[in-house]
Amino acid sequence: MTDLKNDKLLRALLRQPVDYTPVWMMRQAGRYLPEYRATRARAGSFLDLCRNPELACEVTLQPLERFPLDAAILFSDILTIPDAMGLGLYFTEGEGPRFERPIRDASDVRRLAIPDMEDELGYVMDAVGLIRRELDGRVPLIGFSGSPWTLATYMVEGRSTKSFARAKAMAFDCPELMHELLAKLSEAVAAYLNAQVARGAQALMIFDTWGGVLTPRAFRELSLDYMIRILSRLTREEAGRRVPVILFTKGGGNWLSQMAGSGCDALGVDWTLDLGDARRLVQDRVALQGNLDPCVLYASPERIREEVARVIASYGPGSGHVFNLGHGINPDVDPDRAAAMVEAVHSLSRPFHDAEDRGGSPRHQA
Amino acid sequence: MTDLKNDKLLRALLRQPVDYTPVWMMRQAGRYLPEYRATRARAGSFLDLCRNPELACEVTLQPLERFPLDAAILFSDILTIPDAMGLGLYFTEGEGPRFERPIRDASDVRRLAIPDMEDELGYVMDAVGLIRRELDGRVPLIGFSGSPWTLATYMVEGRSTKSFARAKAMAFDCPELMHELLAKLSEAVAAYLNAQVARGAQALMIFDTWGGVLTPRAFRELSLDYMIRILSRLTREEAGRRVPVILFTKGGGNWLSQMAGSGCDALGVDWTLDLGDARRLVQDRVALQGNLDPCVLYASPERIREEVARVIASYGPGSGHVFNLGHGINPDVDPDRAAAMVEAVHSLSRPFHDAEDRGGSPRHQA
Repeated sequence: MTDLKNDKLLRALLRQPVDYTPVWMMRQAGRYLPEYRATRARAGSFLDLCRNPELACEVTLQPLERFPLDAAILFSDILTIPDAMGLGLYFTEGEGPRFERPIRDASDVRRLAIPDMEDELGYVMDAVGLIRRELDGRVPLIGFSGSPWTLATYMVEGRSTKSFARAKAMAFDCPELMHELLAKLSEAVAAYLNAQVARGAQALMIFDTWGGVLTPRAFRELSLDYMIRILSRLTREEAGRRVPVILFTKGGGNWLSQMAGSGCDALGVDWTLDLGDARRLVQDRVALQGNLDPCVLYASPERIREEVARVIASYGPGSGHVFNLGHGINPDVDPDRAAAMVEAVHSLSRPFHDAEDRGGSPRHQA
Repeated sequence: MTDLKNDKLLRALLRQPVDYTPVWMMRQAGRYLPEYRATRARAGSFLDLCRNPELACEVTLQPLERFPLDAAILFSDILTIPDAMGLGLYFTEGEGPRFERPIRDASDVRRLAIPDMEDELGYVMDAVGLIRRELDGRVPLIGFSGSPWTLATYMVEGRSTKSFARAKAMAFDCPELMHELLAKLSEAVAAYLNAQVARGAQALMIFDTWGGVLTPRAFRELSLDYMIRILSRLTREEAGRRVPVILFTKGGGNWLSQMAGSGCDALGVDWTLDLGDARRLVQDRVALQGNLDPCVLYASPERIREEVARVIASYGPGSGHVFNLGHGINPDVDPDRAAAMVEAVHSLSRPFHDAEDRGGSPRHQA
């Protein structure tokens, strides 16, 4: 494979010097782009798009054609693993994902088998390989998975939920069963991420979308402990280079310090915390990714620039920051606003990365 | 009016000694109770129920007949103020509240008038007076309002939302307009709460349901500052007794320390923080209310007891804790589980309230 022409993402995730802060956006391949909507219309449904490696590759690359982003992320869904376990994933318009056969009891859990990564999930791996080839070393490719707890909530609820009543009821009343499910999912997630690295993923991200709905104790026992187990099983090198791993627990601001000791390289941070406070909490043990409120992209380019400046200044000087939104980009955002954000990150961050001056104050305040 | 027979709620909110930890539940008058469903069916719609003082009084008292709760809370909706401002509140089945005439521009904001508390909002005040009379001093009556930011999100969005795109876009792009709206709402909320105290409310709670979706800076500017303004305008005495005020920002765990300096008497805490950590954060400047995960009520009575014990032990010895769920009780909870929780709070908390031993360790660990 060709050498990486832009390795700023990997360097920042490992807290190595960079000349500007790299940036990408969660859901950067998505509905806010007209070219994405066109490809999706050709594909049929959202799931048809996920399952077609050529079209998944096409949409993965689309945002890179528009914006000078510093990373690509595999286009896929977080629920591919439970789907491959036989739960029957489908989508209803406006209501999000559902499963035909959710997990209701012990026999449902026992029936679950770890899917074959090159068979049931071969379409994901084919997409990874194809994207990596088509990227041709422009920027690194990020692979990803949902966390075991996040996958479990959908599998037990059978759909999106606000209260997480079924999943929490299982956790409180049948803890052994929930732990059996989470252990199986951990094994599957580790295998899934390792298979992505084998096909060319150069960094990995675990989306713990629903870790933040737990009590501190339940978060440790049901979410963090299983992410730690996965981290210990991951291939951390690809073609002689470290594969950094990012953990992102939405609403997990209270737990950043614990998460920093998990063995990951970086933590995602949503916008409810100042990045400077987050940096103090993790004491520079890991890099940080985030954390612009996605709704800033509804504002004027001038206002976007101000808010970007604030985030960069809050992190402060030195490497270890990957700029991102604190959540996926909203579907009704004007792509030009995303362009304004990317430009602002690149231009405003340079003064914070003077190699001679790292750890001190930036020479030119943005 | 008759003397209060049970004033433990008021004492705990003011961190005065009590012999056990008082308990009530957010949405304790609600759909999980068959008697509530029966009254609501008689009333017609949810709004008909809110607007009928006799029936609102009836459902307010229902949970007190079932459980030895230490407080009643006015049965009403948080959107009565915007409705009285002419926005046309209505409810759609399963989708929550909506407004016929949401706020779209400056002329919409300028048109808003502070409602007359005894005219447009007279039905709320009549309910307060009636409930207070019917309570006959059994327990204190809590009055409440939504926070200005929370009301503003619904008024600008026109409905429930996950992204808060319109409200945040207004805040980022037309900050003066958003501040004009928030200033008007603050005036209305202060008048609304004062009118409730005039009719007999003995404690007040401000529900900042959507403060937690903001950045730290936006939270201060758009939510906390206006709650502070309201606090400075509230009547804090009723019949010679202090009227304690509780602020509750869901997802506001990161900001408890700031909120403790707002002039309130107590802070609500959701379940994503240990109550002991919350107590250290606020350094006993205010009382705390919370913080059982509402989903614990899906578990067995034994498990409920264990989790109640954990919350009580986490707060530790001494007064200043009002037990509550971290969010409203879910509609599909079995009322007997709520009974188990209330019983557990009363019996397990006594060892933490030995008047001679306050500030030290409890003599009998629960």
